[in-house]
Amino acid sequence: FNIVVLPGDGIGPEVAAAGVSALKVIGEVYGHTFNFEEKRIGGIAIDTDNNPYPEDTDKACLAADAVLLGAVGGPKWDLGKMRPEQGLLAVRKSMGLFANLRPMEVKASQIHRSPLKREVVEGADMLIVRELTGGLYFGKQTRTEDTAIDECVYTVAEIERVARVAFEAARKRRNKVTSVDKANVIETSRLWRETVMKLHKAEYSDVELEHNLVDSMAMHLVTRPTAFDVIVTENMFGDILSDLASVLPGSIGLLGSASLGTSGKGLYEPIHGSAPDIAGKDLANPIGTLKSVAMLLRFSLNLLTEADALDAAIDAIVEKGVLTKDLGGTASGSQVSAAINDQIR
Amino acid sequence: FNIVVLPGDGIGPEVAAAGVSALKVIGEVYGHTFNFEEKRIGGIAIDTDNNPYPEDTDKACLAADAVLLGAVGGPKWDLGKMRPEQGLLAVRKSMGLFANLRPMEVKASQIHRSPLKREVVEGADMLIVRELTGGLYFGKQTRTEDTAIDECVYTVAEIERVARVAFEAARKRRNKVTSVDKANVIETSRLWRETVMKLHKAEYSDVELEHNLVDSMAMHLVTRPTAFDVIVTENMFGDILSDLASVLPGSIGLLGSASLGTSGKGLYEPIHGSAPDIAGKDLANPIGTLKSVAMLLRFSLNLLTEADALDAAIDAIVEKGVLTKDLGGTASGSQVSAAINDQIR
Ligand SMILES: CC(C)[C@H](C(=O)O)[C@@H](O)C(=O)O
Ligand SMILES: CC(C)[C@H](C(=O)O)[C@@H](O)C(=O)O
Repeated sequence: FNIVVLPGDGIGPEVAAAGVSALKVIGEVYGHTFNFEEKRIGGIAIDTDNNPYPEDTDKACLAADAVLLGAVGGPKWDLGKMRPEQGLLAVRKSMGLFANLRPMEVKASQIHRSPLKREVVEGADMLIVRELTGGLYFGKQTRTEDTAIDECVYTVAEIERVARVAFEAARKRRNKVTSVDKANVIETSRLWRETVMKLHKAEYSDVELEHNLVDSMAMHLVTRPTAFDVIVTENMFGDILSDLASVLPGSIGLLGSASLGTSGKGLYEPIHGSAPDIAGKDLANPIGTLKSVAMLLRFSLNLLTEADALDAAIDAIVEKGVLTKDLGGTASGSQVSAAINDQIR
Repeated sequence: FNIVVLPGDGIGPEVAAAGVSALKVIGEVYGHTFNFEEKRIGGIAIDTDNNPYPEDTDKACLAADAVLLGAVGGPKWDLGKMRPEQGLLAVRKSMGLFANLRPMEVKASQIHRSPLKREVVEGADMLIVRELTGGLYFGKQTRTEDTAIDECVYTVAEIERVARVAFEAARKRRNKVTSVDKANVIETSRLWRETVMKLHKAEYSDVELEHNLVDSMAMHLVTRPTAFDVIVTENMFGDILSDLASVLPGSIGLLGSASLGTSGKGLYEPIHGSAPDIAGKDLANPIGTLKSVAMLLRFSLNLLTEADALDAAIDAIVEKGVLTKDLGGTASGSQVSAAINDQIR
């Protein structure tokens, strides 16, 4: 298997290294060979290539079986014309990563860290499926001296393919999809709702479907997070709601993400940022990346046993209390990584 | 003073009646005459006028000193071509209500109802200023069989006037403004940030200003709600974030809103919906409307003593525990209304 690794900026290289080492251990134990190719993205690519997503990186990503990303960004590039995040948007577009999957689950051992009351958040377990290559993110942008315009565009085909991912995922979970839009105000949301309803009727009527307006949804995520299974929504709403959902379990460092394209290609990254303040100190929690690696095994390489083994190893180490500082522990990032590797072995 | 009352649908008429009766009592006590003119908006206007915002209503609103609105909407009109909410959007546009103000404050006596832990939410006290007549809400909309497009437009003038409202409000509060955008992705947000920064530098450098991306902001509202004073943002982000903020104190029934145009004109309404399930049963909590009436007195009529008196009367009755069912009490809506009226007297 050919894996492209994009360490990126800040703590990105540390957590990506933990991901690579877990894959190597899985390779040993289960008899697979992973070839790793490291490429630049984000701030470091701006510094060396004057381009947050160099050609060379793009070629490698397009040829790979899967891409593992650390994190991008940092204050160093905040004022520049070129921004590290452009690298993220570029790889999403180039690889056609139209579906971003963010599972969020409340762990019993971490629930005391949640900002929500235990009785509100206990048992919450959801998957947010965010459309990732459409909407305001990739629409035409116009700017004159005193006016700016962003275009938000969606087609039926774009909505259908991401809704399909949500319905399929729901069938493997608790069989419920909540589609989020703002159909009482905007046209793209009306098309969104229509398309999801039609697809549901034609192919997924066995799955429970509900529609929610984005403003109510923001409230419900906080007041009754246990009411949801799979949530599907457009790019900008998904950006906001998935970040909102991510803080509910109290441990953002435990969350990974998958961004899927057609034909099983995918990019996997933790949901946390590049945390430049703690970079290079071996403090970064590698678990978000390892959860992403488990998804990489599952979705892009179809190595289901291996994925389950990694997930189980992570859970075991978390329950044992081998935790980095962000989760109230004293272990270094490499200690957590090593403990999980031992557990896999 | 000429007040137009738009009772609307569901519990709208009940809570609007409570607002009118409080104004009458204030008129008696402080020697003012309020003339009330009742007009139709929303579902009821669709039924009788085949228009969610009839001409006649529009004329009255444009001529009034202030408008008091109950609530609009209900399942009855959910499948129709004409929707009650169009009435809301129409009155905002026609009256030029460009700034929506939503104060959110955690009451000690209600904190146990919050979904957040006490130590997270205690002391939170913020004002969300939402741009209300621009952005995706009023941009050009295009629809073909398989594509939908929404245009998001902002001009410097639109951004400046709402930012000004936020800075002015901050000076009367804790002197801090958090401006929310998605400047790392969309053009309107880049113009938003630039414009807010320029205005700050030119006229409000005494006010502390910070910028936050909308996705982080959704997280921060839940993890550290006490960090904010005045929050200012564009229409759609404001819709989402103000609803999110509204559930944090655990008592949405206590929150009111003001939508301000130029020259002191304004529309005032509780933030809750039309709650058709409890309509006509005298269960609706009138306090959101009464808080809105206090803002009406303050912002449109410049009756500051009267506004403070109403706010104080509401606080006293809440602390006394005269509460409707939504807040865990047993009082009817009209009992709460009467208790507050007595308190004013
Ligand atoms: C960095 C930014 C462009 C990006 C986004 O908005 O998509 C990030 O917030 C994310 O969610 O991956
Ligand atoms: C009903 C709807 C059009 C409206 C909006 O989105 O502005 C509502 O959610 C609000 O916030 O007043």
